[in-house]
Amino acid sequence: MGSPGSLEQWIAARAASLDAALAAAFAGCWPARFDEALQYPVFGGGKRVRPLLVLAAHEAVGGLEPGPALAAAVAVELVHTYSLVHDDLPCMDDDDVRRGRPTVHKVYDEGTAVLVGDGLLTLAFQVLADAAHPADTRIAMVSELARAAGPAGMVAGQAADVGLGGPVTTLDALQRLHAGKTGALLTASAVLGGLSAHAPPAHLEALRAYGRAVGMAFQLADDVLDAEQDSGDDGPPSYVKLLGVDETRRRAHALADEAISAVSGLPHADPLRWLAAFTVHRTV
Amino acid sequence: MGSPGSLEQWIAARAASLDAALAAAFAGCWPARFDEALQYPVFGGGKRVRPLLVLAAHEAVGGLEPGPALAAAVAVELVHTYSLVHDDLPCMDDDDVRRGRPTVHKVYDEGTAVLVGDGLLTLAFQVLADAAHPADTRIAMVSELARAAGPAGMVAGQAADVGLGGPVTTLDALQRLHAGKTGALLTASAVLGGLSAHAPPAHLEALRAYGRAVGMAFQLADDVLDAEQDSGDDGPPSYVKLLGVDETRRRAHALADEAISAVSGLPHADPLRWLAAFTVHRTV
Repeated sequence: MGSPGSLEQWIAARAASLDAALAAAFAGCWPARFDEALQYPVFGGGKRVRPLLVLAAHEAVGGLEPGPALAAAVAVELVHTYSLVHDDLPCMDDDDVRRGRPTVHKVYDEGTAVLVGDGLLTLAFQVLADAAHPADTRIAMVSELARAAGPAGMVAGQAADVGLGGPVTTLDALQRLHAGKTGALLTASAVLGGLSAHAPPAHLEALRAYGRAVGMAFQLADDVLDAEQDSGDDGPPSYVKLLGVDETRRRAHALADEAISAVSGLPHADPLRWLAAFTVHRTV
Repeated sequence: MGSPGSLEQWIAARAASLDAALAAAFAGCWPARFDEALQYPVFGGGKRVRPLLVLAAHEAVGGLEPGPALAAAVAVELVHTYSLVHDDLPCMDDDDVRRGRPTVHKVYDEGTAVLVGDGLLTLAFQVLADAAHPADTRIAMVSELARAAGPAGMVAGQAADVGLGGPVTTLDALQRLHAGKTGALLTASAVLGGLSAHAPPAHLEALRAYGRAVGMAFQLADDVLDAEQDSGDDGPPSYVKLLGVDETRRRAHALADEAISAVSGLPHADPLRWLAAFTVHRTV
């Protein structure tokens, strides 16, 4: 499965070019104080799980250098960051702190935070449209990201999370919520990495299966972590409440194994294996 | 210039297919109550100026049937509607009523209104990605729309409008604000219509010049209307405050003429002429 050290080294070798590509996305943004507000949450200590998934998927199907996958990596991180900025708003989760720093609406104001989210989301599509790929690759990326992020995907999951789908009391309803809220963008990240390497359909489907399994493992593992940190019965519906801690942990591991076996036929899948293991190691 | 009757007939002949295309964009959205919230502001009595501009531009460069331009028409209307939903939020303009109906955050709640805007914006890019055009046309549309709507365009204009660029006291600053806030999407609408007909670069540039001039005329005319309805010195910075009513009205008419002359070389420019005249007739 590779040691955590392997994953750390692999990530460290890519961090600078990823940050540089992210910074370049903001060229032309104005006014200056808004540009600053846009960049504030992007360079705020995130783990960059989604862009790393893009780069790992790209490498898995034969992408030798990360360069061609950077546009997709930037796009998924911009979409993820926009969703956090809007999710933190007082009318949503009302969080004052994110990753140890005040949230955008605390540093600036609520109106600015709404516009920051809107700007980051739009910028993601501009980055994909401008990527150095043939038009059919770029439009496949836009389609994949829009579908994953939109109101049949991530935004639908958020809507279910704020109660617009009624109470979430069954495993099916909880899985659908999370498949939208977190799974869709994680799955798209893996597929976008494959598209960045012009991978054949069979490889893209392997990456999609990997992404789906990792996305579910990620959420199960999160629920185990939450349960270990807070034994109360309050809080949102969770896998732990429906399945118990042990069964939730078992399923998280099984899904990570499923993800790893989905990409066993890909030429350079080590980083994908490390990332899948990382999602559940957190629960051990 | 054509009579208002010609414009009304031209619009009436396109209203049903535009509404049908808009409705089709929501396939797959969930949960059901969120789908309902997404559609509420889209079917709320808007004048559809931007999609009509797409259809008129498409026809001007030789598009014989509106069909191939409907995807772009839907996309610009979704982007316009998202911007209104977020603009109406309590932390932005705090408007309870839009077009005689309660705003989204009044019918549902603020969190839902944030998600509705996010969903509509994302859906716009999905609609363009799925359009029945070659990949290079579709990606040119995505690039055009993202740039117009994003944080170097419309969102930047919104940010300037909420004060993030400092006080707006000069004509240059006011023009830049409006070029972002309303001009960018109007310009993109004209260009997207041209792209939908696979227009050559010279025609696209004529449409862009038309869109820029109409966008400015639209705002100048709006300021004249506002001044005639409200004689107070309060309210946001405006062309009327900087130039006076007469000079603002004169410039609006001059810009409409400039728009019309920009497209004088296009084969079927009547609907574009009618729309340009419509933007300033409102001020006479």
